[in-house]
Amino acid sequence: MPQASMPASDHLASRYQHIRQHSLDLIRPLSVEDCNLQSMPDASPAKWHLAHTSWFFETLILQPHQAGYRPFDEHYGLLFNSYYNSLGPQHERPQRGLLSRPGLAEVLQYRQHVDAAMTQLLAAPTTGLAELIELGLNHEQQHQELLLTDVQHAFSCHPFQPSYHTGEPPRAAPQPDGWLSFEADLYQIGHAGDGFCFDNETPAHRVFLHRYAIRQGLVSNRDYLAYIEAGGYASPAHWLADGWDWRQARAIEAPLYWQRQEDGWSRFGLYGRQPLDPDAPACHLSYYEADAYARFVGARLPGEAEWELGARSAQTTDGGWFGQVWQWTASPYQAYPGFRPPPGPLGEYNAKFMCNQWVLRGSSDLTPTDHSRPSYRNFFHPHCRWQLSGLRLARDA
Amino acid sequence: MPQASMPASDHLASRYQHIRQHSLDLIRPLSVEDCNLQSMPDASPAKWHLAHTSWFFETLILQPHQAGYRPFDEHYGLLFNSYYNSLGPQHERPQRGLLSRPGLAEVLQYRQHVDAAMTQLLAAPTTGLAELIELGLNHEQQHQELLLTDVQHAFSCHPFQPSYHTGEPPRAAPQPDGWLSFEADLYQIGHAGDGFCFDNETPAHRVFLHRYAIRQGLVSNRDYLAYIEAGGYASPAHWLADGWDWRQARAIEAPLYWQRQEDGWSRFGLYGRQPLDPDAPACHLSYYEADAYARFVGARLPGEAEWELGARSAQTTDGGWFGQVWQWTASPYQAYPGFRPPPGPLGEYNAKFMCNQWVLRGSSDLTPTDHSRPSYRNFFHPHCRWQLSGLRLARDA
Amino acid sequence: MPQASMPASDHLASRYQHIRQHSLDLIRPLSVEDCNLQSMPDASPAKWHLAHTSWFFETLILQPHQAGYRPFDEHYGLLFNSYYNSLGPQHERPQRGLLSRPGLAEVLQYRQHVDAAMTQLLAAPTTGLAELIELGLNHEQQHQELLLTDVQHAFSCHPFQPSYHTGEPPRAAPQPDGWLSFEADLYQIGHAGDGFCFDNETPAHRVFLHRYAIRQGLVSNRDYLAYIEAGGYASPAHWLADGWDWRQARAIEAPLYWQRQEDGWSRFGLYGRQPLDPDAPACHLSYYEADAYARFVGARLPGEAEWELGARSAQTTDGGWFGQVWQWTASPYQAYPGFRPPPGPLGEYNAKFMCNQWVLRGSSDLTPTDHSRPSYRNFFHPHCRWQLSGLRLARDA
Amino acid sequence: MPQASMPASDHLASRYQHIRQHSLDLIRPLSVEDCNLQSMPDASPAKWHLAHTSWFFETLILQPHQAGYRPFDEHYGLLFNSYYNSLGPQHERPQRGLLSRPGLAEVLQYRQHVDAAMTQLLAAPTTGLAELIELGLNHEQQHQELLLTDVQHAFSCHPFQPSYHTGEPPRAAPQPDGWLSFEADLYQIGHAGDGFCFDNETPAHRVFLHRYAIRQGLVSNRDYLAYIEAGGYASPAHWLADGWDWRQARAIEAPLYWQRQEDGWSRFGLYGRQPLDPDAPACHLSYYEADAYARFVGARLPGEAEWELGARSAQTTDGGWFGQVWQWTASPYQAYPGFRPPPGPLGEYNAKFMCNQWVLRGSSDLTPTDHSRPSYRNFFHPHCRWQLSGLRLARDA
Repeated sequence: MPQASMPASDHLASRYQHIRQHSLDLIRPLSVEDCNLQSMPDASPAKWHLAHTSWFFETLILQPHQAGYRPFDEHYGLLFNSYYNSLGPQHERPQRGLLSRPGLAEVLQYRQHVDAAMTQLLAAPTTGLAELIELGLNHEQQHQELLLTDVQHAFSCHPFQPSYHTGEPPRAAPQPDGWLSFEADLYQIGHAGDGFCFDNETPAHRVFLHRYAIRQGLVSNRDYLAYIEAGGYASPAHWLADGWDWRQARAIEAPLYWQRQEDGWSRFGLYGRQPLDPDAPACHLSYYEADAYARFVGARLPGEAEWELGARSAQTTDGGWFGQVWQWTASPYQAYPGFRPPPGPLGEYNAKFMCNQWVLRGSSDLTPTDHSRPSYRNFFHPHCRWQLSGLRLARDA
Repeated sequence: MPQASMPASDHLASRYQHIRQHSLDLIRPLSVEDCNLQSMPDASPAKWHLAHTSWFFETLILQPHQAGYRPFDEHYGLLFNSYYNSLGPQHERPQRGLLSRPGLAEVLQYRQHVDAAMTQLLAAPTTGLAELIELGLNHEQQHQELLLTDVQHAFSCHPFQPSYHTGEPPRAAPQPDGWLSFEADLYQIGHAGDGFCFDNETPAHRVFLHRYAIRQGLVSNRDYLAYIEAGGYASPAHWLADGWDWRQARAIEAPLYWQRQEDGWSRFGLYGRQPLDPDAPACHLSYYEADAYARFVGARLPGEAEWELGARSAQTTDGGWFGQVWQWTASPYQAYPGFRPPPGPLGEYNAKFMCNQWVLRGSSDLTPTDHSRPSYRNFFHPHCRWQLSGLRLARDA
Repeated sequence: MPQASMPASDHLASRYQHIRQHSLDLIRPLSVEDCNLQSMPDASPAKWHLAHTSWFFETLILQPHQAGYRPFDEHYGLLFNSYYNSLGPQHERPQRGLLSRPGLAEVLQYRQHVDAAMTQLLAAPTTGLAELIELGLNHEQQHQELLLTDVQHAFSCHPFQPSYHTGEPPRAAPQPDGWLSFEADLYQIGHAGDGFCFDNETPAHRVFLHRYAIRQGLVSNRDYLAYIEAGGYASPAHWLADGWDWRQARAIEAPLYWQRQEDGWSRFGLYGRQPLDPDAPACHLSYYEADAYARFVGARLPGEAEWELGARSAQTTDGGWFGQVWQWTASPYQAYPGFRPPPGPLGEYNAKFMCNQWVLRGSSDLTPTDHSRPSYRNFFHPHCRWQLSGLRLARDA
Repeated sequence: MPQASMPASDHLASRYQHIRQHSLDLIRPLSVEDCNLQSMPDASPAKWHLAHTSWFFETLILQPHQAGYRPFDEHYGLLFNSYYNSLGPQHERPQRGLLSRPGLAEVLQYRQHVDAAMTQLLAAPTTGLAELIELGLNHEQQHQELLLTDVQHAFSCHPFQPSYHTGEPPRAAPQPDGWLSFEADLYQIGHAGDGFCFDNETPAHRVFLHRYAIRQGLVSNRDYLAYIEAGGYASPAHWLADGWDWRQARAIEAPLYWQRQEDGWSRFGLYGRQPLDPDAPACHLSYYEADAYARFVGARLPGEAEWELGARSAQTTDGGWFGQVWQWTASPYQAYPGFRPPPGPLGEYNAKFMCNQWVLRGSSDLTPTDHSRPSYRNFFHPHCRWQLSGLRLARDA
């Protein structure tokens, strides 16, 4: 699956150490009990993320490729296999919060055990394994972001709404104006060239796009508040039928974590509950909300190919393509033409989820810095809101 | 929305009478109580279909366009408006079976009242209305098929599983072998030219397709039984994750209405419970089952553009493109590039459902004969099985 | 089970005819579709009540005791057996509304078939069967009341809320004041002497009661409205924990069928929606509401023994002991000391429901006139409100 | 509520210290994460039990009665108030497992803070408070038992089913044979005389009992296994209707925690999974199962008054009346005649739960030793099985 160039082994070893350490850094503000929280079936305890990512290295790299490797605990597969049916049965996902054992201390030992073996492995030439190791690292980075969004959700369920960070949250810069325009043509999208990518970004392929324009900046909290005040949640006219049913059944009046208070709106995040920053991108939207907003203002969500071309042509340091919020696209998550999942368990990494989910593009403030690129495809069910999910407008032009 | 040519008024009048009469013919085997059954939220009582289609003519044609038209009952909108929010509130869909009143006799009078006014309208030149009337007729035809699939479902819930038809079901001809191949190229799909279509078939537009082949014939019961016997429902390896979860939660082992009996498999249909005809196309599959089957045999479902090109190039009397079963495609139901829903209530006809559903192409044995074309887009949620839904294989080539 | 004296056969024959005819009278205001409605799992279609009561005679009397009796349709047991496991499997209760077949006309023929055989049976001496026949008649009377409360519920679900009766509802007389007092003592309750009773009223037995008083009249709508206005539904202080949870989960603010309108409160009943009659007894209360009301006013619900003694000593034409509303008691529905259910299927009539339900005493406006007595025990789950259920206060004295 | 005699203050102080320490002893085998587990809405985390029992002393004794007492944290009420509406709002019960904060260490500090203040209070004469303190201690003892049953349930949900205890479980002595018989008479039950009791055990009052016999010993695992093998779970004949529905819906085939293995039956408990001890009392039964068993063997459950007389007359060291398993009675949990809940918040301790629950009598192996007496009334909903609940037979005699 991974299309990685071969990094020199020592580079990879240092990268391994750095990324693995970063996971540990993330739990520093958390207590032992915090690390075991699971506040909804979609989320996992921080401890589980730490263990699962180690299981990934142990199961897919050390066991098949490291001679004499002794698993830390042969029963861990049942607990920390997420969804790989070809690797054995799995503890039920919604019950991960009941895994008090192994405790956090033991999970940290598990990580050390795996790291020791990986370090040994990385000390030798890794011909043939570099791609797999790189995949394991990118996998760990994905879980680093999930760990944070899952903690945020769990903290939001506590009556005291604790903060993960101390201090003041940074202020956002205003979103740029303007549109990028593209003529109708055959374009190429998907991952090409060197560097790591996931299988779902391949193969690079041609796609015919009609004339369109895509917004330079993201929809901001200011924009979105104006929409709420204009009755965006009050009438079904601009909503998808499934979206309106979803809204009605849950009496939804604003994005997740938003609260109207006497002195204005606030949002709960890793800095606790904070006043809404009008310049920051609107965040914690479902696909339904993002789509309804776009229709309300006479625009639409971009297709993922439209987004990808936009991102490639934009000044990447500008416009929030990366590093602010993930951006819902109009594209259902599907296989690219000619896509072949890799053989074996890694074929389950992405392919079997290509149904009922929508592609988000870009990356968020919580995404590890070197973990984004124009071809990256994130995906969630359309009702999901606990990720840092916002939107960017497009229109026929 | 409809892109109809202008049929001569007298042709339209005769067509109106013919199609409206056909709805009445369909309920002949049904009792008064049969006509009021609603066996699940997705289905509606036959009586409701009869009334709703009349309400459609009354509300969208007679009230705005026939001077002096007096509605049969001004309270009917609440009961028989299906989902048009712009036309007022609606009785809850899952409760349609509780509408004992108006009774069937009164609904038949309602139909006569509407027919009388429509006949008068059709006697005069219908300039400007022909398209709308044609839409009403196509709408009625859609409900004719739903009426039958809904009756089939209701009858399947009765412990005695009554038959709608008397006599023996016709035998199927064998499915043809062979594949149709297409080179990578820009193709045009969607409705172009004269003749009626729904808004969701427009605009005709270019799409780039990669090289592919599509099967000449449908997957048959024989094929599908072999798959069941080979363990198709026993292992998750070839299933989408959501599909496998769906299967597990409902302990599904075969298509809807299928039953393994001592002397072989049977299927319940409008002819009652009948032995499975091995040559007939596999039917009453969910998207999940169709997709899993295709993967199991090393193929895939066709995209809807691939299907449409196949249908246009095939011998239309051959291969079951039309008139046997609807065929699941790999395409999520979405707007075509440049699609604009019509203004007003008819904008709700199709557009707001373009989410979470999948396109089926072709037509079925229960589709009215003149109600199919290569650009026709039917759509259902991926778990739905009570329609006559089967599949045709495709593959990269 | 029944402790009936032996009525002369000709009296029984006439009684049979009269009661069976009354069931038919009850459906006169109903359409064919009305008769097939099932608006919730606890309720059954009117048609089903007509068939089930006939099945009871057929299965428990004609088949075992009438030589040469030919069942009308040997498959009916599956449809019309309510809950007698010893008599075979049963169609699922919540799906009774899907039994379009047999149609109403056929069910009426079924009744005639049974009636003809019963008439023949009753023409001969019925030694040994009179008790069983009397039970069948009392059973039919129970279903007559249920038929009406089930129709009322179904009609309440129709957006037009149709009336079962035409004309104006009768006005209630004011409820009498005053209390009846009883000293602490051993009393006897339960059915003793001649005349029919159900098994659950036996054996008559001694029970020790502490000093108490019971109210001469029922709680009226006027009383209950004052309670609502005083915040009866607004604070948990006087509610049982389960009752308050029930109230909260359903946002209940008033008895079933009550509605606060601009010009005052109304109640939906068999006369349609009518202004609340302040003198009429409060009705359509759950046990939770009845209990909370009693605590709020510093009283309590009577135990069923307390009620029975009250009813025996009261002027029976006064105070609404019978014929207005059923009255919740504080007594969980349980077997009397020494109770033995009859052998065979009739052992399932009452005994297996002696759990999780509460005893109501008296009878209602919808109870057939000769179908009440001081020892009669009606019972429902504590959340049920679609019966004519009200209350009478008691207190320690 | 408590009818306590006045223990000398120093006795009370020592008792306070002993009981409070025992709670801490109970969590010694548990990890920090174990202490935060909530495996179902009925259960609470061990940490929550530790905090709630402290909140009880703080809120009901220290705040009103200890001058200058400073609450440990004024926000704790929201978290650790269980169900006292008169003491303010409560965090939702099913979400207690999400209370990672305060952490275990902080909760232990909370206990010390409360203990310090209580020790000071107890050093002075406690006139007027002894009863309240005694109530707080009995309350803590109730939670000690719940803490253990809740841990057992949580551990049963872990794929590895960890043990709370190390070592081997003790072997049970055989249950004694024989019956105790009682003549029909007026008897007195309820708490009378000195010593602590809960309000629901009062007032002592007369009750008339019919002739009956009650078994000297408990139903054993051997007895219960014979019942399973004889088809006890296979036919509805001896089940209450609600019980059979419950069994069917959950496919229940044995008591909770029982498992049929190749080499015989096992039971999961605080010693982990262990072979079933045939002499031990059958345990982890719902009311439905206990009742069905009794009917199957031609007996019945005792009423709570019957049980209480039996316990008073039996050799208390014999027959498992106390200290083995709680014993389901046939008695719905209701107020005794003349019962008055105490004024203020303590009125919510017991009274509002007197609905939909059944009385269990005796005590279990997990009940603190000095926390049982013949008049003690425990109560649970009829489907509950995670307590140590068994049964003793009775019969009319």
